[in-house]
Amino acid sequence: MKINVKQLERTAMTALSKLTSQENAAQQVDLLLEADLRGVASHGMLRLPRIIRRIRNGAADPAQTGQHAWRGSALLQVEGCDGLGPVVANAAIGALESRISETGVAVAAIRNSNHLGMLGYYAERAALKGLTMIALTTSEALVHPWGGRRAMIGTNPIAIGLPAGQKGQADVFMMDAATSLVSMGEIHDHANRDLPIPEDWALDAEGRPTTDASAAKAGAIAPFGKAKGYALGLAFELLVTSLSRAAIGRDVSGTLDDTATCNKGDLFILIDGPGHDLRPYLQALREEAPAEGFTQVTIPGERGRAARDQRLRDGVDLPEPLWREICDLAR
Amino acid sequence: MKINVKQLERTAMTALSKLTSQENAAQQVDLLLEADLRGVASHGMLRLPRIIRRIRNGAADPAQTGQHAWRGSALLQVEGCDGLGPVVANAAIGALESRISETGVAVAAIRNSNHLGMLGYYAERAALKGLTMIALTTSEALVHPWGGRRAMIGTNPIAIGLPAGQKGQADVFMMDAATSLVSMGEIHDHANRDLPIPEDWALDAEGRPTTDASAAKAGAIAPFGKAKGYALGLAFELLVTSLSRAAIGRDVSGTLDDTATCNKGDLFILIDGPGHDLRPYLQALREEAPAEGFTQVTIPGERGRAARDQRLRDGVDLPEPLWREICDLAR
Repeated sequence: MKINVKQLERTAMTALSKLTSQENAAQQVDLLLEADLRGVASHGMLRLPRIIRRIRNGAADPAQTGQHAWRGSALLQVEGCDGLGPVVANAAIGALESRISETGVAVAAIRNSNHLGMLGYYAERAALKGLTMIALTTSEALVHPWGGRRAMIGTNPIAIGLPAGQKGQADVFMMDAATSLVSMGEIHDHANRDLPIPEDWALDAEGRPTTDASAAKAGAIAPFGKAKGYALGLAFELLVTSLSRAAIGRDVSGTLDDTATCNKGDLFILIDGPGHDLRPYLQALREEAPAEGFTQVTIPGERGRAARDQRLRDGVDLPEPLWREICDLAR
Repeated sequence: MKINVKQLERTAMTALSKLTSQENAAQQVDLLLEADLRGVASHGMLRLPRIIRRIRNGAADPAQTGQHAWRGSALLQVEGCDGLGPVVANAAIGALESRISETGVAVAAIRNSNHLGMLGYYAERAALKGLTMIALTTSEALVHPWGGRRAMIGTNPIAIGLPAGQKGQADVFMMDAATSLVSMGEIHDHANRDLPIPEDWALDAEGRPTTDASAAKAGAIAPFGKAKGYALGLAFELLVTSLSRAAIGRDVSGTLDDTATCNKGDLFILIDGPGHDLRPYLQALREEAPAEGFTQVTIPGERGRAARDQRLRDGVDLPEPLWREICDLAR
């Protein structure tokens, strides 16, 4: 059902503000709402009931903003203290922003905070301020190494955001992609609807290729792009973990359940950009003749921004049980 | 034919030292030799005759080390002045290294230097010093956007290097992968041997899928990993270009010929690591049971290092005409 965006925001705020400050609740709600506005339902309001259960169970502490320790003038180590993902991340990014006018670049490595949500959210906000961001985060092991049978690596997304125009202009580029071929959410969605999955998506619990989505839920997702995507996902796992001092591989917990503390890592690289007007190049890409079977060349992130404009007018589509659950949580 | 490594190095040094200082020649030769030692022939001594032609033609100036301008205490802008790729890169990385004990992280954005060669070379050398590096570079447009017909994006590789053990130990992780599905070198190799290429590798000059390697040479290579790999390759194109202020897309020249000046960009992010001992995790990966059709789970970079040890003993395999050409250049 279509829910008016303001009504959805107000209801979610009422629900979450029972457990933390208006300020911290607003950061979490804005993140979830932005994902729904882009059409990324898996990272949207769907997650609010779980976040609230995690707070009630003591797995997340919504009052925490993270403890900051500078290892060098441009390298920030953050202990997340079980804080909410966006609350800890926003505080860290704020600290980087206040540093880069002096340093030009600054990095935050975070451990022990909760799920970051849609990673592109942070990258796009940086870009809108005229800054360049590379963002990485790890997750529970869901992806098998190329040539392996078991999940050993997180879905380890990367988001890159940068200003596409001159400083002070609103044009931005933002991409956000996991290094898994698909998300575990897509596999669950197929299982829920009794649909088969393509053979290259996942392995079952014994490490054999499967088209049975339910069997894949207990198995491992393939890396995107075969051996290269595996190399990239593994590199991100090692990079984020070694700099954040977070847990690694099968030791990572708390990104999928209601009770385990979350010990994955996050990495934000913020650079004072831009140098170039990238808009003529992006426009040339949009105007390229499409290949057979395609209607146009698209720029990553733009479909999401177009969807956002439409949903701001028309409302966000939520499953009725989810909307009822959020209303109950706000009561 | 197998060439003794010391003899190859000496002969290449003699050839290149006619045109520049011993110091600058040694940096270029070491890079090429390391690629051959890893089995990356496309980035090895094969390139020496072209580098020498580019110097003779004035497209490369081997005396240049790059002009440095700090934009903030940790962000270095480098004008490459047509210098050799490794000479300009090593000077920039040296400047970053002298900065990070104070800043913890430092970034160099380079334009107008020549081909960097094997990108993982720089990342692995940083890792061996106990540092973490993310390296990016662009190239001439060789890759089509997902859904497009023409080459609009470079092969845009990424290399990530980091120390896998405690500081001061030699254990490292290094991955190095282009965002194209294959290299143009592989397509040329198929064309030279009159072999067909798989249908998903490339488009012909009209933007149609082709199995004819000669037709693909005039066309565009596919991005690896379909839409996600396109998003990543495009993001790297924009990221490197906007920070280095280099040329973009089809305006990039000088990475494939003997006469055009090279106007692509490079980006090095150097971080003072590590925090963690990653060796138990890497060892667990190596010990994973292999999937059907595989004999083991491999760690990126390790096959190259094993090949290196063997070739240091047994010599490097070069085509006889190439070895004769290098000997002639040294005469």
